[in-house]
Amino acid sequence: MQVNIERIQKHIETLSGFTQTPGNGVTRLSYSQEDLQAREYIKQQMKAYGLTVREDGIGNIFGKLEGKIQDAPSVMVGSHFDSVPNGGAYDGAGGVVAGLEVAALFQENKLTPNYPLEIIAMIEEEGSRFRGLMGSSGITGTIEESDFKNIRDVDGLLVTEAMSNAGLDPSLPIHRDSETIKAFLEMHIEQGPILEENDIPIGVVQSIVGLTQLSVTITGRAGHAGTTPMNKRSDALMSATNIMSKLPQLAIDEGDGTVLTVGRLQVSPNAANVIPDTVNFTVDIRSGEEEKVLKVVKNVKEIIRSYDGNGIKTSIEHPLYIKPKALSDDIRSLLSEACNDLNISHYTMNSGAGHDAMVFSDVTDVGLIFVPSENGLSHCPEEFTHADDLARGANVLYETAKKLTEA
Amino acid sequence: MQVNIERIQKHIETLSGFTQTPGNGVTRLSYSQEDLQAREYIKQQMKAYGLTVREDGIGNIFGKLEGKIQDAPSVMVGSHFDSVPNGGAYDGAGGVVAGLEVAALFQENKLTPNYPLEIIAMIEEEGSRFRGLMGSSGITGTIEESDFKNIRDVDGLLVTEAMSNAGLDPSLPIHRDSETIKAFLEMHIEQGPILEENDIPIGVVQSIVGLTQLSVTITGRAGHAGTTPMNKRSDALMSATNIMSKLPQLAIDEGDGTVLTVGRLQVSPNAANVIPDTVNFTVDIRSGEEEKVLKVVKNVKEIIRSYDGNGIKTSIEHPLYIKPKALSDDIRSLLSEACNDLNISHYTMNSGAGHDAMVFSDVTDVGLIFVPSENGLSHCPEEFTHADDLARGANVLYETAKKLTEA
Repeated sequence: MQVNIERIQKHIETLSGFTQTPGNGVTRLSYSQEDLQAREYIKQQMKAYGLTVREDGIGNIFGKLEGKIQDAPSVMVGSHFDSVPNGGAYDGAGGVVAGLEVAALFQENKLTPNYPLEIIAMIEEEGSRFRGLMGSSGITGTIEESDFKNIRDVDGLLVTEAMSNAGLDPSLPIHRDSETIKAFLEMHIEQGPILEENDIPIGVVQSIVGLTQLSVTITGRAGHAGTTPMNKRSDALMSATNIMSKLPQLAIDEGDGTVLTVGRLQVSPNAANVIPDTVNFTVDIRSGEEEKVLKVVKNVKEIIRSYDGNGIKTSIEHPLYIKPKALSDDIRSLLSEACNDLNISHYTMNSGAGHDAMVFSDVTDVGLIFVPSENGLSHCPEEFTHADDLARGANVLYETAKKLTEA
Repeated sequence: MQVNIERIQKHIETLSGFTQTPGNGVTRLSYSQEDLQAREYIKQQMKAYGLTVREDGIGNIFGKLEGKIQDAPSVMVGSHFDSVPNGGAYDGAGGVVAGLEVAALFQENKLTPNYPLEIIAMIEEEGSRFRGLMGSSGITGTIEESDFKNIRDVDGLLVTEAMSNAGLDPSLPIHRDSETIKAFLEMHIEQGPILEENDIPIGVVQSIVGLTQLSVTITGRAGHAGTTPMNKRSDALMSATNIMSKLPQLAIDEGDGTVLTVGRLQVSPNAANVIPDTVNFTVDIRSGEEEKVLKVVKNVKEIIRSYDGNGIKTSIEHPLYIKPKALSDDIRSLLSEACNDLNISHYTMNSGAGHDAMVFSDVTDVGLIFVPSENGLSHCPEEFTHADDLARGANVLYETAKKLTEA
């Protein structure tokens, strides 16, 4: 491998030191003191690798290596550098460090590409302060520039105020013409157990899964827990329980990583001695194939409706539906090729979570790879990815970026 | 029948008018303006039926017809006259009115019994202002007189202060020597559907059911709803769901009115996109036979423990255990005899709820009868019992009180 594991490790360690909660994970919110420290470090590295650095009007950082072709669109490589509160050192930062390593390798190998290479470090992917995927949504225009003016943090501070307080310049442009982007490559930790369990170091993402959420309400009849015989009850919780116990199998039957979760459930009146009259619960369904999402939704609805009657009423709302997003087949082929050339075994898989790559896929060709998360853990101080795995990922991105910046 | 249905109906209607929420059910809290109005009315009726009226230090009302035997213990007949907020016109008041009717019949039939007859109207059975079963617990000494000094309502007002504000005298004695009580008879609405569905006008209560509550905690592992495959989950809610779906059958298998209720359930972290790591729920189990309660508890615990493992931990607390209370066989026989003599079909049944009769059963022989609740409803404005049924109940109490005051 051409990558420098020590350099990668040093970047990860240095960035993880920029935390509001030392000893208790990484807490690096957008425009905080720790953002400014990490930002300064990232800009320094970009400059050291020969990149021209600039920032935009919401604080994303771009380091550009010009290409031979005049005004050609850039091959962008990067991820986000904000974190959740008490998160880990790899979610986002791993991908930023991989981008820096790609730039370092272009410099070491004295490459002058045809198309520009742009390493990017984005803010506010997690939405821990303002809104999820805000950095990439700004670049791609998924959120209008004017809309940013109204986003506030929990203290009521506007994005523009928070930026000005941090010494950043919110008057710079935000949106970037998609004509200026040739492709976007991202490495991210898997945040799940699949790669580790299969002992596969690289996951090449085929689709960002489709996500839908149902909100289900079961209405029965309240009654005294002591005076209402078992055969005279319309117990909303028991009906909900019978429904819920049948749901996981629907996802298992579809297979291919289809998942179903009942995460939120509320009981009313929720007193030990009263038969519940209302239960509300969510059903979260995800799959890389829209067909599977739709089939599970249909089956879930059928099961729920079969409990209508005998004093039980069911109702289903459908507040959230996001289609699966297939990423570029061409770039996926390049990523797989790079793995093969480097003798790195890889796995084609879906992403169960949204990433900046998903946002970019609306405006350009996107490639996303995963590296293993130890024990599948993420968003916690224990989050860990081996430096070897980060290095393999960076190497795959380097090989792919080389090809994409050539033709 | 000797009872006067119009008189019963008039009493019910008059008492239901003493409500803080006209048009929206009966709201008559202890020591309120409405309590004072009802109290004045009840005392007037007692006097009109030739009873000697007194009140005690927590506001219970006693109307006594002296017996021929000097200093003999009384046969007490009555119930409570407080209500829940926005409750009905029959819960408690029905039993008070039945007591008044018994006194009226003693007067009309010019009976002078051997043992005194005492009609009682008790306060604070519902616990809507201070504490459940407070009136009867005071009389029987289940709560020490000194303890009453510390009971406060939601506004921080002591019982004694609330009584003084209402012009009542908290310095009067409360506890009554059990030697002065020969028996206690109560008529109450069933608050359940059994009598109505079987078209039986009188339920003769054999036992107040035993009541136990388990508090169950299921602990699993939180995880991302999108990135955690179905076969890698330790989903606390799915385990809880599988457990709960098996519980009702355990009560149904025991039969004889054994009931089981999961009334309260809490999920953590309770977010639509997070696999739940903790679920806490209650299991309320009731039966007239202690053996059945214990058997269901044993079976519930076995099912819960069978889910231990694969990342799931279960724990069970047992915060509440009240043994079933069998009421007096002798009085039950008298009540059944009275039904037979009056050609009123009756049903031997258990009471799924606690009543003042339960409290009296610790210190004297107790008889409790139920009259039908329309649609099984109670604690709501729709609560209704036909005057015919109230009259039948009053007649049964009258015949039984006649016998008990004789020998």
